[in-house]
Amino acid sequence: MTSLLRVHNLTVSADGFGAGEGQSLERPFGYADPGEMFAWAGATASWPNRTDPGGSRGLDDYMTRDFGRDIGAEIMGRGKFGPQTGPWEDLDWQGWWGDEPPFGTPVLVLTHHPRPSFTLGATTFHFTDAAPAVALEQARAAAGGGDVRLGGGPTTVRSFLDAGLVDTLHVAECPDVRLGRGSRLWTSPDELEDRYHHEAVPSPSGVVHHLFWR
Amino acid sequence: MTSLLRVHNLTVSADGFGAGEGQSLERPFGYADPGEMFAWAGATASWPNRTDPGGSRGLDDYMTRDFGRDIGAEIMGRGKFGPQTGPWEDLDWQGWWGDEPPFGTPVLVLTHHPRPSFTLGATTFHFTDAAPAVALEQARAAAGGGDVRLGGGPTTVRSFLDAGLVDTLHVAECPDVRLGRGSRLWTSPDELEDRYHHEAVPSPSGVVHHLFWR
Repeated sequence: MTSLLRVHNLTVSADGFGAGEGQSLERPFGYADPGEMFAWAGATASWPNRTDPGGSRGLDDYMTRDFGRDIGAEIMGRGKFGPQTGPWEDLDWQGWWGDEPPFGTPVLVLTHHPRPSFTLGATTFHFTDAAPAVALEQARAAAGGGDVRLGGGPTTVRSFLDAGLVDTLHVAECPDVRLGRGSRLWTSPDELEDRYHHEAVPSPSGVVHHLFWR
Repeated sequence: MTSLLRVHNLTVSADGFGAGEGQSLERPFGYADPGEMFAWAGATASWPNRTDPGGSRGLDDYMTRDFGRDIGAEIMGRGKFGPQTGPWEDLDWQGWWGDEPPFGTPVLVLTHHPRPSFTLGATTFHFTDAAPAVALEQARAAAGGGDVRLGGGPTTVRSFLDAGLVDTLHVAECPDVRLGRGSRLWTSPDELEDRYHHEAVPSPSGVVHHLFWR
């Protein structure tokens, strides 16, 4: 079986932003409201961050439940790990994801400032300044034959798309949210149609699921 | 985690039939054309019967790839195992599924005429004349903590629905196929709305995915 590079549950505004300007320790999504943008996912039974039983099992749940299937490692941009830029000033700060990060695999964090690896729960964070193609090789080596999830954010996903490395891509678009500035995936999903099959599937929850594969 | 009873990829005509009249050894779906009805599933990358690489990875593939997730056992009606009725006349005939059945778990076949268990590949077939609730207990005991898939046909699914035992149900409706007579699931999906949440999701392939949960 081929090890695929997959993007899941990347949620963007109608104008293609995954986060608004002004990201900080307190506001990982800048001035965007994650409660509004991720409501579709938080309502599902399979949302990885869900702690109580229950939740919907319709179309949106098919999307969230695919998050962990056959995944052996994740790659994320530094901005998904934390808001800091430049050299690390506090190595005691171990990212936004708490004592039990929802990944449960090795995670490669892309940064120009590598730091020592550490483990939280079932997740081990590694840090690399490798370019996308090399980072993907490192992730595949860590994935034990499984697929690799590309976790975002939008800028990181865009760089792997532009390097021709992404095999499948799921983006949830919030048609009622416009952000104007921030971390952008695209101007329009049509941009990828020269390279990918594309289905746009409206969900009863109001988001539109864009599914791409090649 | 609760062990769910799940139905996947049950494909029916616009008038609610999963198979036409006249089922036989040569025609498992009677006068219905399985090539037409299952074209949506056969085109996907994750269809369990696929032998070559490739296939689509859009909405329909989310449906077919969920077939095996966390499943520890299957329950099927006798008509999904073979077309015979009454006492078994040839125990050497081991069902429609070949040397490597696509289940890969224990399978309970519901029949008024139990026969000895046997194994083909990773699948072991057991035969039971238990009523639905008891058969479900048997399947859960065999599932090793996993979920149980209710494999069909439509008459079997209907009996488990009427016994209040089904937790999630995925039905693919072919809007352009009408069968008139045969093995029927429903007159209309609306029949289940008093007991289930229901989403109807049209696929670019032409089928409509009906998703039910409670």
